[in-house]
Amino acid sequence: MKDITLKQIAETLGISITTVSKALKNYPDVSAKTRKAVLDLANSLQYTPNSFAVNLRTKESRTIGLIIPEVVHHFFSNVINGIIAEAEKNGYLVIILQSNESLELEKKQVELLMSKRVDGIIMSLSNESNDDDHIKELIRREIPFVMFDKISKLVNCSKVIINDQKAAYNAVAHLINKGCKKIAHIRGPVNPQNAIDRFLGYKKALEKHDIVYNSKLVYTCDNVTFEEGKLFAEQIIKEHPDVDGVFVITDLVAVGVLDYFNEIGIKVPQQIKVIGFSNWFMSQVITPKLSTVDQPSYEMGVQSFCLLLEEMNCKKESLSFQPKTIELETKILERESTLEK
Amino acid sequence: MKDITLKQIAETLGISITTVSKALKNYPDVSAKTRKAVLDLANSLQYTPNSFAVNLRTKESRTIGLIIPEVVHHFFSNVINGIIAEAEKNGYLVIILQSNESLELEKKQVELLMSKRVDGIIMSLSNESNDDDHIKELIRREIPFVMFDKISKLVNCSKVIINDQKAAYNAVAHLINKGCKKIAHIRGPVNPQNAIDRFLGYKKALEKHDIVYNSKLVYTCDNVTFEEGKLFAEQIIKEHPDVDGVFVITDLVAVGVLDYFNEIGIKVPQQIKVIGFSNWFMSQVITPKLSTVDQPSYEMGVQSFCLLLEEMNCKKESLSFQPKTIELETKILERESTLEK
Repeated sequence: MKDITLKQIAETLGISITTVSKALKNYPDVSAKTRKAVLDLANSLQYTPNSFAVNLRTKESRTIGLIIPEVVHHFFSNVINGIIAEAEKNGYLVIILQSNESLELEKKQVELLMSKRVDGIIMSLSNESNDDDHIKELIRREIPFVMFDKISKLVNCSKVIINDQKAAYNAVAHLINKGCKKIAHIRGPVNPQNAIDRFLGYKKALEKHDIVYNSKLVYTCDNVTFEEGKLFAEQIIKEHPDVDGVFVITDLVAVGVLDYFNEIGIKVPQQIKVIGFSNWFMSQVITPKLSTVDQPSYEMGVQSFCLLLEEMNCKKESLSFQPKTIELETKILERESTLEK
Repeated sequence: MKDITLKQIAETLGISITTVSKALKNYPDVSAKTRKAVLDLANSLQYTPNSFAVNLRTKESRTIGLIIPEVVHHFFSNVINGIIAEAEKNGYLVIILQSNESLELEKKQVELLMSKRVDGIIMSLSNESNDDDHIKELIRREIPFVMFDKISKLVNCSKVIINDQKAAYNAVAHLINKGCKKIAHIRGPVNPQNAIDRFLGYKKALEKHDIVYNSKLVYTCDNVTFEEGKLFAEQIIKEHPDVDGVFVITDLVAVGVLDYFNEIGIKVPQQIKVIGFSNWFMSQVITPKLSTVDQPSYEMGVQSFCLLLEEMNCKKESLSFQPKTIELETKILERESTLEK
C-alpha cells in the first residue's frame, strides 16, 4: 500500500481537502461529526502526516545536524550517544555527518546541512580546520550553532569544552609527583586548539616544577593513531633512552606506546611511566592499565544539545540569544601505568 | 541575516516568484537577461534552495533512517561508518537513532522515521525484539528497508548478514584443533537470531568432534557487557574447574573473561584458551591478544546502503524489487589466546 494523502481521504468522504486538513488539526469550524469521520478513516488507513510538509508551515524541521571528525572513536561515539539521547527527549532527530578530519569535506557538509534547513548544528572541528569562513557564514545566517571539544576561539558561538591546558598540566604534574624527571610529550596535530592547549599545559607543568623544556622531547602526530603511538615510542627510546615519563595526546596513541614497550620488554611503570588523555574504554583492560585524564564525553553531548535547544527556542520566539561557554570538569584517573615503583 | 526566499528575490527585481523559480532551474522560457539577473542576485544574497520544499515536489527527502541498538559499540560504529560513507557518495543524509536494545523504543523510532518520510530505513534489531509487527508495517507501506546483523528471518526484506552458525562452528573447531576438550560457551541473549545461530554452531562443532554437549557449560548474557564476561568467567572456574576452552559471543565479553583470568592468575592460553567474536579493536592490544572471528563490519554498512539504494531507485521508477540477501565472509584470526602450549 502506498502512502495515504489528504486527497484520498477527502475523495473517499466526499469533502474538501481543506476540511480534512482542518479536521486533523482540530479546527473549531469543522463539525464534530465530520471530524470523527475523518479521524476514523485516517486511523483505519494509518495516515501519517507528512513532516516535511509541516515543516513549510512551522519553518521547523525538528532535525539538527551533527558534524564530527570520526564515528569510530570512543570519545566521539560517547558524545553522539549523549546528543542523540537528549535530542530524543526533546523530540529532535539527529543527522550525523563525518568530516574524516578533512576541511574540504567539513565545508561541504556545513553547506549541505544549511540547504537541508536543519534547525541547528553541533560540530567538532576537523584537524585540518584552519579557517573559519564556513562557520562564520553559519553565524551570519543566524543558524543556531554549538561547537564542542575541537573549537575555534575566534568564532562567537556557544561552546562546550574542558580546560585542556589545565587538564594537561595536571597529567604532567602527576608524572612529576610520581618521580619522573625527563618527560616526553606525544602531541596532536598543529591546528586543533585542544592539541595546542594540551601542549601548553605540558610546558607549563615542566616550568612550574623547574624542569627545563626541551623541544626535542615533543613528537607530533599527524593522524592520532595507534600506529603513530608505536612509532614514536620506538623513536623516543632510540633518541632519548633516559626518558622516564610520557604524556600522550589521547589514549588510543598511548595504547600504541604501551604496546611497543610491552613488545621490547620495557617495564611500565618501573622504567617509564605513561599517562594518556580522554579515558577510552580499552585503557582499563590493557596491561598495564593506563592512567589517563577522564573527559566527560557523554555529558559533553548532553550539554551541547541543551545549549543548541536554548538557542533554537530563542530563535523561534525571535528573542536575542547570548552565546555561552560551558566548561566541564576533568579528573586524573590513576591506574597501573603511573604507579610508583 | 535571515534566510533569503524566492519572494524577496522576486520583489527586489520586480518580477514574479514563478519567473524567479524558473530562472533558478534554467527553464528555457526565461530570457537570458532575466536569468542572469536572478542568478546574480541569488548568488550575492547567498540564496539556498529549501530542500524540504523540493521534497514535496520530488517526493524524495534524500534522507535515510538508521536504527541500531548502540552507537558506542565497536561493531556498530564501524557499520555506521560504512553506511555514512556510501550514503554520502550517493548524495544521501543519514539520521541515526539508537534503540538501546529496547523493543518499545525501536517501535517508536520506526514510526518517527515513517512520519519524517525518509526514503528508506536500515536497521539492526534490538535484543528485546521478539515481534515483527512494526517491521511488517514498513514492508506493507512499501518503504525500502534493509536489515543487517541482527535480523528477523520471518520478514521478507533485503538483508546483509554473515553465516553466524558457520562462523561459530569454525571458532569452536579451532579450539578443538588446538587441543581443547571441555569447552564452555558464553552466549548472547535468548531472542536475537545471531545469538541463537552462534549457539547452534557451538553445539554442532562439539557433536562433529564427538564431544558430548552439556547444557551446564552454556552461560547466557542479558546485556552482553564486559562485566558479564568477568562474572561468568568466575562462575565457570567455580563450577567447572577443568574447562580448557571458552567460546564467547563477542569480544567485549571475552575481554572481561581475560581480565578475570589475568586477575586470579589463570594462564591463557596454557590453562584455558579463549576465542571471541567480531574483532573489536582492543582485542589486538590486550594481553594476551585475543583470537576472534573477523566480521566485516564496515563492508556490512556499505552493502546495506547499496541494497537500500537499489530498492529506493526501483521505487522511484515504479519498478518491482525482489529483496536480496547478501552473506559476507568471516575468518578466524588466530592470536595469542588460543596458541598451542
